[in-house]
Amino acid sequence: MKIINGGVTKPKGFKASGLNCGIKRSGKFDLGLIVSDCLAVSATVFTKNSVKAAPLIVSQKHARNNKIQAIVVNSGNANCFTGSFGLIYAQRTTGLIGTALNIPENNVIVASTGMIGKVLPYTKIQKAIPRLINGLGTAGSRSVAKAILTTDTKTKEKAVVITLGGKKVTIAGCAKGSGMVAPNMATMLTFITTDAAISPQMLKNALRKAVDQSFNCITIDGCMSTNDMVNIMANGLAKNKTISKAGKDLNTFCKTLDFICLDLAKKIVLDGEGATKFITIKCVGAKNTKQAQQVTMAVANSNLVKTAAYGSNPNWGRVAAAVGSLGIKGVTDLNLRIKFSSFDKKEIQITADLNIGPAEAMSYTSDLSLQYVRINGKYN
Amino acid sequence: MKIINGGVTKPKGFKASGLNCGIKRSGKFDLGLIVSDCLAVSATVFTKNSVKAAPLIVSQKHARNNKIQAIVVNSGNANCFTGSFGLIYAQRTTGLIGTALNIPENNVIVASTGMIGKVLPYTKIQKAIPRLINGLGTAGSRSVAKAILTTDTKTKEKAVVITLGGKKVTIAGCAKGSGMVAPNMATMLTFITTDAAISPQMLKNALRKAVDQSFNCITIDGCMSTNDMVNIMANGLAKNKTISKAGKDLNTFCKTLDFICLDLAKKIVLDGEGATKFITIKCVGAKNTKQAQQVTMAVANSNLVKTAAYGSNPNWGRVAAAVGSLGIKGVTDLNLRIKFSSFDKKEIQITADLNIGPAEAMSYTSDLSLQYVRINGKYN
Repeated sequence: MKIINGGVTKPKGFKASGLNCGIKRSGKFDLGLIVSDCLAVSATVFTKNSVKAAPLIVSQKHARNNKIQAIVVNSGNANCFTGSFGLIYAQRTTGLIGTALNIPENNVIVASTGMIGKVLPYTKIQKAIPRLINGLGTAGSRSVAKAILTTDTKTKEKAVVITLGGKKVTIAGCAKGSGMVAPNMATMLTFITTDAAISPQMLKNALRKAVDQSFNCITIDGCMSTNDMVNIMANGLAKNKTISKAGKDLNTFCKTLDFICLDLAKKIVLDGEGATKFITIKCVGAKNTKQAQQVTMAVANSNLVKTAAYGSNPNWGRVAAAVGSLGIKGVTDLNLRIKFSSFDKKEIQITADLNIGPAEAMSYTSDLSLQYVRINGKYN
Repeated sequence: MKIINGGVTKPKGFKASGLNCGIKRSGKFDLGLIVSDCLAVSATVFTKNSVKAAPLIVSQKHARNNKIQAIVVNSGNANCFTGSFGLIYAQRTTGLIGTALNIPENNVIVASTGMIGKVLPYTKIQKAIPRLINGLGTAGSRSVAKAILTTDTKTKEKAVVITLGGKKVTIAGCAKGSGMVAPNMATMLTFITTDAAISPQMLKNALRKAVDQSFNCITIDGCMSTNDMVNIMANGLAKNKTISKAGKDLNTFCKTLDFICLDLAKKIVLDGEGATKFITIKCVGAKNTKQAQQVTMAVANSNLVKTAAYGSNPNWGRVAAAVGSLGIKGVTDLNLRIKFSSFDKKEIQITADLNIGPAEAMSYTSDLSLQYVRINGKYN
């Protein structure tokens, strides 16, 4: 596994583009496009929030046949809680891209992130499409990585080269900030591209496993967005023997996808709102993995643990209370062990040993700072 | 129902006392005692946190036979995560009170609140017991209300007189702050006294119902303490006909107990750490009460809703996202309705209408302010 510079256009046959179409008044990029030269096998994970934004409803429909060739995404407006017009605009956006690229609109996925409850300025998107298509190129990965940002302060990209059956295969991705963010902003978005040849079922399993071990292990403020989406397109242009069953190739592919997802997830935490610390919470000695995950997420979502981290105050009583709040049988003050790394560093490790079994899990979070409250309370 | 001034010594046959025994270096009260002239029927609700403080383990044992005559409580030290010595000290404290009052120690309940993980300064308590006993009197309710405080800024008391079968009956209570509070501080404690005659089973049911509708509906920061306890003693000295079955008397008693618990719970929220607002969250149109409660608590525990309240920023997208995060079937942007009261007042109402059923529930919380982060991050 070799880490390389660049993003979603590193795998063969992917082009991208990004620009400002006028949704963001600041002039920052707010519209992006990722296109594969040929129809790609695809898998997508959507938010479990029952209030789903319009683009997710359209994309869920289009994702159903596991074949995607393009992703169009805007920032600055979530197109959520926008009624039937929101749905029509999301659908039409895929239509515009389909027409411009001469591909069926149900091979296009649409995503949005930004303000909830404001009508999507559809005509701005419509007018910008020719420019967006025109800008498509292998140099466009940074542009699309910019176009998906909201209150993020940094672009988040990762690209890796591996060898599958003697063929060079590239997997790459870009992501934007997690947590529900400043005034009505929302969403964690991740788009992954690869030139690997892989069956839809294997890709689906690989993505779900990678997401479970990365994006599902991070929390900024415990708030689940209405627009979260992780998508992967695999266009097969690396010409490796199609991965269609368990084996060495699948293992290598999964390991790499896990690595990319975890890297992007950690970048999201590091760039969390007002974050001054990166906190890794590990649970060991649990009965099973699910229980270990519950423990790490309970600690990661504890405001008292997060403020203690902010204040460089290694307060194990708060960790114990968070663990105990789950009411797990057998977890008492007599067998629960809590360990801290040095608390005055930027990276903190907290380990909770339940001493009731062999399972373990990890979660990642940021601290709860004055700046978080300022950003979300519109204090400044 | 007539509200009167005063606290736990208002019902007939109750005396109380409070003083500083040296646990708190500030000289503020840190040791309190409530005693009934005769053995009282009693009911207690304990924290569901699996990490339980030593005094709770002792008190759970003593509460089992539903007969209690005295409650001894200290603040400044939670006696939690203190191993077998913690248990011994908690047990001995009940022994000291039992000996001094000439009652069995298993008729004494012990409670603690304060720093987690520090050895209880037992000899300080031991030395202060004669003074504590000496101070017992009907004027002592304010003293015990003070002795249970940690980072609370105000004492919290309520007393009410009702008539049951022609007899004057008094119910009163005192409480201390909810939420896990500044450095390692913990705990919500509530002690209720009444001279009503009531059977143990009726009292237990009444307390559980009252707690469910009050203390279980409030949240400061979603953190569950290791030391939470709500106790009621009913000594029967009002000489009303013993309430032992459903009927008018039970209804009146329950209504009054509900009122006192809700009043004390609201006082706890109002005095929450760094609180600048009191937020009532109502869910209507839910399938059942449990679902409605889940909704109100999800909104009440959302950091984004709480920071929005702090910033007087009526952000319904955040409420929608919190409701949606529960993944309730049928709750989408098409039928979820959210209403706000004026957001620039000190008291805020948020209503979420799910439009899928007849049930409703309420929760109460405070906002998430810069001061909360300062207090808990030890920033100042």
